[in-house]
Amino acid sequence: MLLYLFLILPVISVTSRSWNIHDRSVPKTISDRLIELATQGAFRGVTYYRLAALADTIGPRLCGNESLTQAVDWIRNAMTSEGLENVHVEQVQIPHWVRGEERVQLIQPRYAKLSMLGLGNSVGTGSKGIQAPVLVVRSFDELNVRCEEARNKIVVFNPQCDWKAQPIDCYGVVVAYRSGGASQAAKCGALASLSRSAASHSIDSPHTGVMTYDSSYPKIPAASLSVEHADMLERFQQRNQSIEILLYMEAQTLPDVTGYNLVAEIKGSILPNETVLVSGHLDSWDVGQGAMDDGGGAMISWTVLSLLHYLNIRAKRTIRCVLWSCEEFGGIGADQYFLAHEDEVPSMSIVMESDMGVFHPLGLEFQGNDKAQQIIQTISQQLISINATQVIPGGGGTDIRPWQLRGVPGASLYNDNWNYFAYHHSNGDTMNVLNSTDVDLAAAAWAVYAYAIADLDDLLPR
Amino acid sequence: MLLYLFLILPVISVTSRSWNIHDRSVPKTISDRLIELATQGAFRGVTYYRLAALADTIGPRLCGNESLTQAVDWIRNAMTSEGLENVHVEQVQIPHWVRGEERVQLIQPRYAKLSMLGLGNSVGTGSKGIQAPVLVVRSFDELNVRCEEARNKIVVFNPQCDWKAQPIDCYGVVVAYRSGGASQAAKCGALASLSRSAASHSIDSPHTGVMTYDSSYPKIPAASLSVEHADMLERFQQRNQSIEILLYMEAQTLPDVTGYNLVAEIKGSILPNETVLVSGHLDSWDVGQGAMDDGGGAMISWTVLSLLHYLNIRAKRTIRCVLWSCEEFGGIGADQYFLAHEDEVPSMSIVMESDMGVFHPLGLEFQGNDKAQQIIQTISQQLISINATQVIPGGGGTDIRPWQLRGVPGASLYNDNWNYFAYHHSNGDTMNVLNSTDVDLAAAAWAVYAYAIADLDDLLPR
Repeated sequence: MLLYLFLILPVISVTSRSWNIHDRSVPKTISDRLIELATQGAFRGVTYYRLAALADTIGPRLCGNESLTQAVDWIRNAMTSEGLENVHVEQVQIPHWVRGEERVQLIQPRYAKLSMLGLGNSVGTGSKGIQAPVLVVRSFDELNVRCEEARNKIVVFNPQCDWKAQPIDCYGVVVAYRSGGASQAAKCGALASLSRSAASHSIDSPHTGVMTYDSSYPKIPAASLSVEHADMLERFQQRNQSIEILLYMEAQTLPDVTGYNLVAEIKGSILPNETVLVSGHLDSWDVGQGAMDDGGGAMISWTVLSLLHYLNIRAKRTIRCVLWSCEEFGGIGADQYFLAHEDEVPSMSIVMESDMGVFHPLGLEFQGNDKAQQIIQTISQQLISINATQVIPGGGGTDIRPWQLRGVPGASLYNDNWNYFAYHHSNGDTMNVLNSTDVDLAAAAWAVYAYAIADLDDLLPR
Repeated sequence: MLLYLFLILPVISVTSRSWNIHDRSVPKTISDRLIELATQGAFRGVTYYRLAALADTIGPRLCGNESLTQAVDWIRNAMTSEGLENVHVEQVQIPHWVRGEERVQLIQPRYAKLSMLGLGNSVGTGSKGIQAPVLVVRSFDELNVRCEEARNKIVVFNPQCDWKAQPIDCYGVVVAYRSGGASQAAKCGALASLSRSAASHSIDSPHTGVMTYDSSYPKIPAASLSVEHADMLERFQQRNQSIEILLYMEAQTLPDVTGYNLVAEIKGSILPNETVLVSGHLDSWDVGQGAMDDGGGAMISWTVLSLLHYLNIRAKRTIRCVLWSCEEFGGIGADQYFLAHEDEVPSMSIVMESDMGVFHPLGLEFQGNDKAQQIIQTISQQLISINATQVIPGGGGTDIRPWQLRGVPGASLYNDNWNYFAYHHSNGDTMNVLNSTDVDLAAAAWAVYAYAIADLDDLLPR
């Protein structure tokens, strides 16, 4: 596949592009030079361009799918050509769920196609599909009360939440039904489970995501419905109109395949065995382009190394970029990476993952002790020129959690991602969600924080 | 079909519902009583409820489709049961375009399904579809320059516009390509035409709409692409990647069928032969639910009569509600209505059409002479309690234009429709776009303006 990719993928070479460095003045600090390079100099637009070339040409990169391997190959080759250090892949075992054909048809009270996406890990319906009456509930509590009614029906979970007021909280509330709805419905004898999409805003947009089965109950098919269609079904029920739908899903889980975490480094000048890890995940859902989740996070992490390499700058410590495999099914690649690298816990200064958008950057979400926090606060002042100085609690990420649980400080990009859940896991996750200027700023902020931490005299305290 | 509809459609009877009129005080004016009834009294929520029952149960109502006739039957029956006067349909000839199956597949540089909707009036592609390379242009000017390159290609029009700054203007700019792109492309020997959706905001949302052929050139198939996919094709071209797509459309135009404008009235107490006409169109595109365009406009026009009937109030003049057939193909039903009613031009005080949303009402868009405008300004003060007093120039509407061209003043609902073009003509046009409270306010404003104009001592000056 590699040769073919070389033919169809555009060559990305910064030196061959037409952007010029405007040497209006000699930047005073390395942070200023990184910011200038990313936002005004030779790297202006490069991160967005790289991401677009990848996301347009290869498309979304579902865990276990050939496209994810293509993406790894392409970036590995580009990193090697660019001259980054220690570019290599590390093999991991990853699940291979396939969607296949799928649809939800409303049969009663009228015939219509409903907007749906099967959920990752779900079983299929068999070749005839499942045609059944519908019970709509708003919560697990309501299901428990109406458990008898759910038998031999398709249960539709339609949880309500004020997304404008609290998007992150609402995501948690609604995702509980995406994740666990099928087994709860199965417990009541339901035939299948449909859940309202975890969407802050919808234009006929179903949102997929991973679900899990509780082994105590039968595995029944699980899919998401668009917000609009979940609400429509609820209105039918409120008006006592009988509802019947046909769910058809070919979803199945094939045997595990080999996946690859992709690694590159800029070795430390003084303490090469101590590390700052910057990362994003390269896999995505199989809808849209995986541009926001998490092509952008992966690309700015790559850009951190590109900027340092271009400027021929080394921090005291090694800065390692890892592009994770199969985050979407639960940090699969990252968990295996941690097991293989557990001995690095003492020498890992911080683990950073950007997986909540690369919109206009505001600063850093950080998780660490007070002393470490003070150090990050001081570093943040180096970002005054682009106004990305806010340090707030947070800094989680599925892929870096194992390190954090062992006491390593963690961080993620704090950015203006208020609209994240309008696009997340949907066909709307495309290059149009992002803009080149903000992506450059995000890459600059990400690079400055990573470099400054790697160049401290000591490891971040923990 | 009528009997079947009676069975599946919920009965809508205001008196049977549980809302109460809160007679906290005796309203002083008829306007106040209309507002209170619509927003606090027995009609609170009724307009939204009626619309949801219709749009959920019957769905979208494409011109020429059986569902449009079902909608007419259902509303006519409801209006008759309610006791409105002179409820009847007037037959018109309407076109019968059918979409059939359709798809756009990206073949090179990768295989993917693109988000598209065929355009109304378009011809189909034949059973094999059209597979060809692509030329993306941003404008007719660019096409003219690259006319030679377009031969035997599929032309993609990707006009750019700042929708945030000027949504209405942008709609005009982009729709020029939807309407006329196919013939301009055909002029250059292109095989088909795809145009960027006329969307102010998109989550993978293609927007359909009507197109027309210039008889000087061959008829080639025409469809819209989502904003995201039009931009992706342009980026492929910018990167010199070769693009090939397969367009398949079964679209065809069948012989004309009979359609129905639906009419009901509250007869005038003193001048029954003079008329205020309130209207919306009942047909919609065959995507989404036709809730915003224009189920809402149709329903608030019906509610004007319902409110007056419930309160047993007559204006001096007749208030006539007309729900038009087949606006989306160019005011087809309304044009025939005008021809049949042209003799009413002298006795028509004003023609009103709500076809730009029933969001939070701000006042009235009005087209008429200065004297008439002053009268409307005075009337607007009756809407102070709901802050819908703004009278601004405008007041157009495809269906009322023939009357306006003959000098009859015209008006439309001025409402907070800034997001209208995110949903317009797309699968996003559903009940979720609207909210019951604002629809009630819109109905109240529409009723007060209509009643007050109908109750003036004289016809509006022209």
